[in-house]
Amino acid sequence: MSVLVPKGFLLAGVHCRIKSDPKKPDLALVMSEVPAVAAGVYTQNLVRAAPVELDRSRTPSDHIRAVVVNAGNANACTGTRGMDDARKMAELAAAVCGAAPEEALVMSTGIIGQFLPMDKIEQGITAAAVKLGSKPTDLAAAARAIMTTDLVPKVAGRTLELDGRTIQIVGIAKGSGMIGPNMATMLALVLTDAPLGPESAQSLLCDVADESFNSISVEGHVSTNDTLLLLANGEAGGPVLAGSGLSAFHQSLGDVCIELARAIPDDGEGATHLITIDVAGCADREAARRIAKTIADSALVKTAIAGSDPNWGRIVSAAGYAGVAFDPAGVSLKINGFLLYDRGAPTSFDAQQVSESIRANRETHVELAFLEGTAHARFWTCDLTAEYVRINADYHT
Amino acid sequence: MSVLVPKGFLLAGVHCRIKSDPKKPDLALVMSEVPAVAAGVYTQNLVRAAPVELDRSRTPSDHIRAVVVNAGNANACTGTRGMDDARKMAELAAAVCGAAPEEALVMSTGIIGQFLPMDKIEQGITAAAVKLGSKPTDLAAAARAIMTTDLVPKVAGRTLELDGRTIQIVGIAKGSGMIGPNMATMLALVLTDAPLGPESAQSLLCDVADESFNSISVEGHVSTNDTLLLLANGEAGGPVLAGSGLSAFHQSLGDVCIELARAIPDDGEGATHLITIDVAGCADREAARRIAKTIADSALVKTAIAGSDPNWGRIVSAAGYAGVAFDPAGVSLKINGFLLYDRGAPTSFDAQQVSESIRANRETHVELAFLEGTAHARFWTCDLTAEYVRINADYHT
Repeated sequence: MSVLVPKGFLLAGVHCRIKSDPKKPDLALVMSEVPAVAAGVYTQNLVRAAPVELDRSRTPSDHIRAVVVNAGNANACTGTRGMDDARKMAELAAAVCGAAPEEALVMSTGIIGQFLPMDKIEQGITAAAVKLGSKPTDLAAAARAIMTTDLVPKVAGRTLELDGRTIQIVGIAKGSGMIGPNMATMLALVLTDAPLGPESAQSLLCDVADESFNSISVEGHVSTNDTLLLLANGEAGGPVLAGSGLSAFHQSLGDVCIELARAIPDDGEGATHLITIDVAGCADREAARRIAKTIADSALVKTAIAGSDPNWGRIVSAAGYAGVAFDPAGVSLKINGFLLYDRGAPTSFDAQQVSESIRANRETHVELAFLEGTAHARFWTCDLTAEYVRINADYHT
Repeated sequence: MSVLVPKGFLLAGVHCRIKSDPKKPDLALVMSEVPAVAAGVYTQNLVRAAPVELDRSRTPSDHIRAVVVNAGNANACTGTRGMDDARKMAELAAAVCGAAPEEALVMSTGIIGQFLPMDKIEQGITAAAVKLGSKPTDLAAAARAIMTTDLVPKVAGRTLELDGRTIQIVGIAKGSGMIGPNMATMLALVLTDAPLGPESAQSLLCDVADESFNSISVEGHVSTNDTLLLLANGEAGGPVLAGSGLSAFHQSLGDVCIELARAIPDDGEGATHLITIDVAGCADREAARRIAKTIADSALVKTAIAGSDPNWGRIVSAAGYAGVAFDPAGVSLKINGFLLYDRGAPTSFDAQQVSESIRANRETHVELAFLEGTAHARFWTCDLTAEYVRINADYHT
């Protein structure tokens, strides 16, 4: 599907030498031609990076003009210098967009442990502003500029026809390591030309984050920098969305966020399988989520899938320590549609056949069912391979 | 230190073809010549294996005569057949020790997914009984017979002189994967000839488990079979321990359990570092424990240590998602004595020097300090290497 940039937004991605490889852009600049409504969902880590603190203080808003993102070196600091750098980065971005200093938002990702190279950031923002003049909607470059260990850029979009208006939604995201829900994404930015109020934008975003970016993990480590932003500039025209129009927009926004979120564990560091975990028959959604997340975070479940091992014991035992009460005699488990465990006991399944099904498919589908109620939850993760260890043990090389 | 078997206990380890390698014993039998007091601490996984259910129903007790353990194939089942097998295994062990069927306890570890080969178990128990006659205190063989992916047997002991009596405590343990606290151990058995009452034995055991087997992890996956048993047969003579004698025994029992528990992550699957995590300055011990455990379970912290990377960001951010409130500006961090992070900000430490210190030592010491109070906790884990993934992705090969 071709993805169209919503009306009134300009995007650029440039290389400003934060990443060593000159072919890899490392700074993205997004500008709205008119003040946009902005909403944000942020990491729930108690140790929050300065860009998160800054954006939290500026959203929801109805007058954001710019978002600047750098990759390669995270501004992950919590002290005065980290906050000064974040504020300066926003101010520089606002300046090239002709906006007031407080009308810009900031995101930052990459290696933790160094302060931002502010001279390079400044040169990058200037270069990006020049690019906005020559090639104003370079979505691909912006998506590539926010990547760290990602192997592929992550872009998703939808087009809606609402009462004679055409509304575009487009999102970009990055993340493949240090991914644990609340907020899982590391970084995602969704742009739309839909007319939305700030409170309604914030409420929609929280709602869709729950079933998308907060339902994924790579290894469950909650980053200090995770940020999901929505900018809505209203350039599609017409009155602010409400009623059935708002519902239709909500649905499409959810689709965009799920598509972006799934792409993160699918591109998880070292991953050879995307694992979709469906947990059903629980007393409430929170119980289903806790079980799904505990399975998703188990290194033993993840290595089993990497080895194409239909190991029901690791999955059922992970459910058992999720901190949720259930009757063990009511548990059933399917992998890729094969029933391995039926109401508390293993079936006489063909292990070779199930193993071959895991090996042959990029996606593995785990379905765990209980007899406690009707609530369900879906979670996405990836398998754990030696390559994940190599990437994270040799981070600086 | 030489470890002596307490008076009145006989131990044997034999090979009965559960493990394919004939050089590896796979069944241990422990007999007390007189009825012993027995206490147990078990997995908190909701899905509990049949041997755990059986032992839970039989402890605390003052008339246990035998413990039988098999390795290579776990009886991890929760249904009728698993329970029938566990009960039969205990009955066979009791019979060869001349005890009543309900006077034996059972432990089981190994690959999950198959029912126990009861014919082999039966032959093994008979062979072990014969061994008890010819070589009655083969502690080394018993310790080896309970190993699975362990590289080394785990034995610890202490001798106490109390009011003219000599009291021996000896423990064996196994575990190197699927290790997450409550109970972390997979399996441990501690024997003593001290005279103890059943309630006091149970209370001591719960207390020492908290700071030993419940303070370790390899990957945080809580097994369905974890069991720690204490048998005290009183053969050292004299009245039941109380007062200062009981306190001295408590201390020595704690030392034995900590020595055994530490040996588990030290022998963690694929581990190249034992990591000791000290968390201090917390409001209460539970807060300190949660932070220590969250750091211990972070794949990113564990891969950083594997790569000798003094990555303060991963450690501080793991503390931040532990679910414990603290002031980020009050956090300080040392690795191997080097101050990397001082009250909320990184120091200008020599990364090369700290990295070299991690690389050159088998043990890594992580000290995280807060300004919330005076409570502290210690936790042990190991690093995460590609070898861990290989072991767990190629489990059946």
